[in-house]
Amino acid sequence: MRRAVSNLTRFCGGSGFITPGRAPRTATVVMSVSRLSSTSSGRLDVSGIYPPIATPFNKDESIAFDKLTENMQKWNKIAFGGYVVQGSNGEYVYQTAEERIKVVEHVVKAAAPGKVILAGSGCESTRDTIEMTNRMADVGADAALVVTPSYYKGGMHNRALISHFTKVADDSKIPILLYSVPGNTGIDLDPEVIIVLSCHPNIIGLKDSGGDIAKLAHLVISTQSNDFQIMAGSAGFLLPAYLIGCVGGVCGAANMLGQELCDLEQLYKQGKLKEATNLQQRIVAPNACVTKRFGVPGLKVAMEWFGYYGGPVRSPLQPITSEQEEIMQTVFKLSGFIH
Amino acid sequence: MRRAVSNLTRFCGGSGFITPGRAPRTATVVMSVSRLSSTSSGRLDVSGIYPPIATPFNKDESIAFDKLTENMQKWNKIAFGGYVVQGSNGEYVYQTAEERIKVVEHVVKAAAPGKVILAGSGCESTRDTIEMTNRMADVGADAALVVTPSYYKGGMHNRALISHFTKVADDSKIPILLYSVPGNTGIDLDPEVIIVLSCHPNIIGLKDSGGDIAKLAHLVISTQSNDFQIMAGSAGFLLPAYLIGCVGGVCGAANMLGQELCDLEQLYKQGKLKEATNLQQRIVAPNACVTKRFGVPGLKVAMEWFGYYGGPVRSPLQPITSEQEEIMQTVFKLSGFIH
Amino acid sequence: MRRAVSNLTRFCGGSGFITPGRAPRTATVVMSVSRLSSTSSGRLDVSGIYPPIATPFNKDESIAFDKLTENMQKWNKIAFGGYVVQGSNGEYVYQTAEERIKVVEHVVKAAAPGKVILAGSGCESTRDTIEMTNRMADVGADAALVVTPSYYKGGMHNRALISHFTKVADDSKIPILLYSVPGNTGIDLDPEVIIVLSCHPNIIGLKDSGGDIAKLAHLVISTQSNDFQIMAGSAGFLLPAYLIGCVGGVCGAANMLGQELCDLEQLYKQGKLKEATNLQQRIVAPNACVTKRFGVPGLKVAMEWFGYYGGPVRSPLQPITSEQEEIMQTVFKLSGFIH
Amino acid sequence: MRRAVSNLTRFCGGSGFITPGRAPRTATVVMSVSRLSSTSSGRLDVSGIYPPIATPFNKDESIAFDKLTENMQKWNKIAFGGYVVQGSNGEYVYQTAEERIKVVEHVVKAAAPGKVILAGSGCESTRDTIEMTNRMADVGADAALVVTPSYYKGGMHNRALISHFTKVADDSKIPILLYSVPGNTGIDLDPEVIIVLSCHPNIIGLKDSGGDIAKLAHLVISTQSNDFQIMAGSAGFLLPAYLIGCVGGVCGAANMLGQELCDLEQLYKQGKLKEATNLQQRIVAPNACVTKRFGVPGLKVAMEWFGYYGGPVRSPLQPITSEQEEIMQTVFKLSGFIH
Repeated sequence: MRRAVSNLTRFCGGSGFITPGRAPRTATVVMSVSRLSSTSSGRLDVSGIYPPIATPFNKDESIAFDKLTENMQKWNKIAFGGYVVQGSNGEYVYQTAEERIKVVEHVVKAAAPGKVILAGSGCESTRDTIEMTNRMADVGADAALVVTPSYYKGGMHNRALISHFTKVADDSKIPILLYSVPGNTGIDLDPEVIIVLSCHPNIIGLKDSGGDIAKLAHLVISTQSNDFQIMAGSAGFLLPAYLIGCVGGVCGAANMLGQELCDLEQLYKQGKLKEATNLQQRIVAPNACVTKRFGVPGLKVAMEWFGYYGGPVRSPLQPITSEQEEIMQTVFKLSGFIH
Repeated sequence: MRRAVSNLTRFCGGSGFITPGRAPRTATVVMSVSRLSSTSSGRLDVSGIYPPIATPFNKDESIAFDKLTENMQKWNKIAFGGYVVQGSNGEYVYQTAEERIKVVEHVVKAAAPGKVILAGSGCESTRDTIEMTNRMADVGADAALVVTPSYYKGGMHNRALISHFTKVADDSKIPILLYSVPGNTGIDLDPEVIIVLSCHPNIIGLKDSGGDIAKLAHLVISTQSNDFQIMAGSAGFLLPAYLIGCVGGVCGAANMLGQELCDLEQLYKQGKLKEATNLQQRIVAPNACVTKRFGVPGLKVAMEWFGYYGGPVRSPLQPITSEQEEIMQTVFKLSGFIH
Repeated sequence: MRRAVSNLTRFCGGSGFITPGRAPRTATVVMSVSRLSSTSSGRLDVSGIYPPIATPFNKDESIAFDKLTENMQKWNKIAFGGYVVQGSNGEYVYQTAEERIKVVEHVVKAAAPGKVILAGSGCESTRDTIEMTNRMADVGADAALVVTPSYYKGGMHNRALISHFTKVADDSKIPILLYSVPGNTGIDLDPEVIIVLSCHPNIIGLKDSGGDIAKLAHLVISTQSNDFQIMAGSAGFLLPAYLIGCVGGVCGAANMLGQELCDLEQLYKQGKLKEATNLQQRIVAPNACVTKRFGVPGLKVAMEWFGYYGGPVRSPLQPITSEQEEIMQTVFKLSGFIH
Repeated sequence: MRRAVSNLTRFCGGSGFITPGRAPRTATVVMSVSRLSSTSSGRLDVSGIYPPIATPFNKDESIAFDKLTENMQKWNKIAFGGYVVQGSNGEYVYQTAEERIKVVEHVVKAAAPGKVILAGSGCESTRDTIEMTNRMADVGADAALVVTPSYYKGGMHNRALISHFTKVADDSKIPILLYSVPGNTGIDLDPEVIIVLSCHPNIIGLKDSGGDIAKLAHLVISTQSNDFQIMAGSAGFLLPAYLIGCVGGVCGAANMLGQELCDLEQLYKQGKLKEATNLQQRIVAPNACVTKRFGVPGLKVAMEWFGYYGGPVRSPLQPITSEQEEIMQTVFKLSGFIH
């Protein structure tokens, strides 16, 4: 039986979150990822810029594995921390369980050495999430990005979410990052839930796409004793996120502006704040185009401009209109990213 | 290639929605459902009260097929129009594709003769939805209830939704009912979309759980020339829905108050408005308990009070607390349904 | 000192809501309204159809009192229960305190004998609301329609709203109706709050514009022992509202379709449900045009078609575009209300 | 007649926004504010930290002008850029027109020399807003903070908002800052609207309380050629806002943590990013308590801890409960601001 999580506000400590009488599965795993770097407390280090890679499809909507390879060969030349595969930008909800695994497996193989592979393994049910997570681990994912379940909105209260993530983390072979993306799910992970879950030895971080920078600052300070790694979920607030203590970003725009985002990271780290700010300001509008404004259909069109394969989206998503494409072009031109 | 749906406001007519050069698959299907009644224009008649049946689970969260059989033996004695299987109350999002099919197959076999089986076949992608619909048809579903896709909220504009439902209806072996449940999906099907889709020969109706009675009245009058059947998605507004022209209701509360809801239907049809109104008023608060207020966990507890097997929900849904159960009991007592 | 309202769920009864040691001000008032009819328990009877009258403005946005008189001469010929003045359709938020009073005074004088005058007296603060209510009473309003305060949304919890309405009702010279209009205010009055407040001797009813018919049915049954009168806040669900026990409607569309709405009321009362339903169905779409869809600017344009003075709206409201006017015309024509 | 604003996307330029044949009223005004500093283009300089001051009330809810004086004597010792009076934290919606003017007049007199006085003059109607703005100018306000009208949400589209702010700016004797506070109004000013309005010679800036840092970065770059000054509307994201180019902050928390916020500003300006970040992180949680979480009632309680007069709120706002006060104390203690 699993230990009840009865009190949201209790402090982390004591015998910990792990089910008594059972060794945490993570122990062995941490050792097997020795090719990757670790944080000071020995956790998988997920810092840096990660593109949440778009899944390429052929005209008939089947997965274009060859195009995925080609894209990755280009991305491998950029100083990314690693890849997010099967995130929202990967249209994971439109893929069967088998497809989700296969794409992860393919990305693991195509990634350059040293790149961390974060696999989006969230499903609506806890049991499916656990199974998906471990199957993704089996094909080589280094950690799993677990989105909040969201269908029964009234039922996804804090107690339910803590229980869900705790069970998944208890039973997962690889470390877990929480994933909050209220724009898609309608569920915004409560800071109290995140702080409680940051105490779990197998929950190592958070990707937050909500964009509330004050929330992120509060989380950084509230979880710092747990070596908890917080990642900005969008390029729109990457620099402010670094400033208040985030360790990196999972940025849709990195699918085509990966070098620029890594440059931004470097400018920040070198203390060149003015240049970093200028770059950040230029990135906001193009980033909005490939995220909130035109979504994955916009993202895939913009990828083509930068030499990547974008290709079609899966139905019911629709391609953007020619008017929308024109707006995108104007925005990218005004920002100086295309000519 | 499929015919483009270029104009939301065009009137239905002309060469129709069906892909040219291809016979609609429904022709043969209509004949095969001869055990069921038809509307004046020959469509499957889905009028009446339908419980959207809860999927029973064992303690280990596996499906309790024996309990499902037992519940159905009791429900079969009530004058339901049929059953909705794998709707929101069936926790369909927590089941694998295989489980979803198996439960439909089981319900088809356990249903009394003449009961219409409406199977919830919606998936996020169009291709998965078509496959699921036809697999459910293969195991005996009479029609499919297709929920709106909802993950990429910004992308689920009217154009995308019309395209999705048109493709599914084109390729489905059985008739389709649209399913709008904004409380769960965050997507409220626009009347314009519904009116356009009501012209499709294989889209025979709508289940609307939004509760906007004025919207329903408008839809009834706007789709009446298409023999389009509109069903109330909750017992909370069943009588008003009948009054303004709906043909029936898919009511979560019918899992335990099925007889009472069929009584309400009869009182309305017999013109006993005063008695119908009294019953409707008594049903509102208990219905709210097993839907909006406490959801499926509340529904399953209340089922036990009426001799049905409720059992556990699947995680991450959590059982209701004892305080919540007390509130539910008070409400059901005050309304006179338990003592 | 005022009696604390400490418990939301307590039953009505005991020494009542009125401050001990002080006679309720309403006693004398009830006597003075003898020209109007009363309910069985002696309360002011507010049943029937009420137009929430549009405030006519001249081109320079000053109030066109002469046009108001002309409109009222036409409305006086219709079997309305009375008038709502300074409701949302009256653009009350765009008028100074003095203007709000003057328009009420004018309507009181211009109304035919026997018409009940419900005056919208809500302000953000409790003290301003009390003063406004009593000043409107002084110029002849029979009862006040008090909208929920809404600016500090986080602070307008149930405790605050109960306190506000209780203080207003305690100190008002005339009876109070609660007014919930979430589309404008973002605040949807909780049924629990309404039920508690229905026990107050000076709170005689509710106008609810939210359109949740199940909520209304629940409120009718839960407040029936308090002689509490519930009014539909829109013509879009007038017949269903009557059916489940509402006593009337405050319907924006009554500004131009007053006769038709009174006909609907009569058809319902005569048991001619089929005709009533037909009329209700026809009214939904035009009603949506002059409420949710195009608001007061749409309402004022449509009034002109029916021989009333509509005139300009006050800035920042903008006139509807010619395209929007065409849509409205099509809708009114298809519904058979104009030719 | 006023020049029509027909095209949201046109570039600023040409003969400008001002009504032809009429001199802008601001010309003379700019000269009269010579005691204050100006930006490079000669506009009033509103950079720095501004407390949006709480309006102190006596027990009977009348305005406690003596307490206001005392508070200001303390605030005057802090290096604030100036004061915001009659903002959301000033409970302006609960004050009569006369009271709003009197409080502004009082603050003007009590402010130390060189402090900029920004007066909240927004009303629902354009005409009332213009009158209020000019009356506040007459009693000495240096600029007006004009909140978005919000009652008719459906009618407050971009066209209406551009028209409103243009008319107000055209007719105002003092410069205008736009004020977007979606948490209270439900209206989030669209970047396109802001960019268009930034071209108006009498609209000099924006206070944005929405907290979307990416939006602010985009606005900074898009309006920089217009010498447009953007202010963070909360202390929760003050440092990130400075980083991406905001000129200051209007921070509720400055009512009691004014020195700390001015310290934060200085640390940022001196390039001491690490110290600034630490301070920013500590401020987030206490700031949330006195804004989103417990609102003005929380703010006024916390003010007392720091030697200011807080006093009661006006009804219908309610004092916080003792449990809420305890939570606030814990948060302020953990953050090290009280002991």
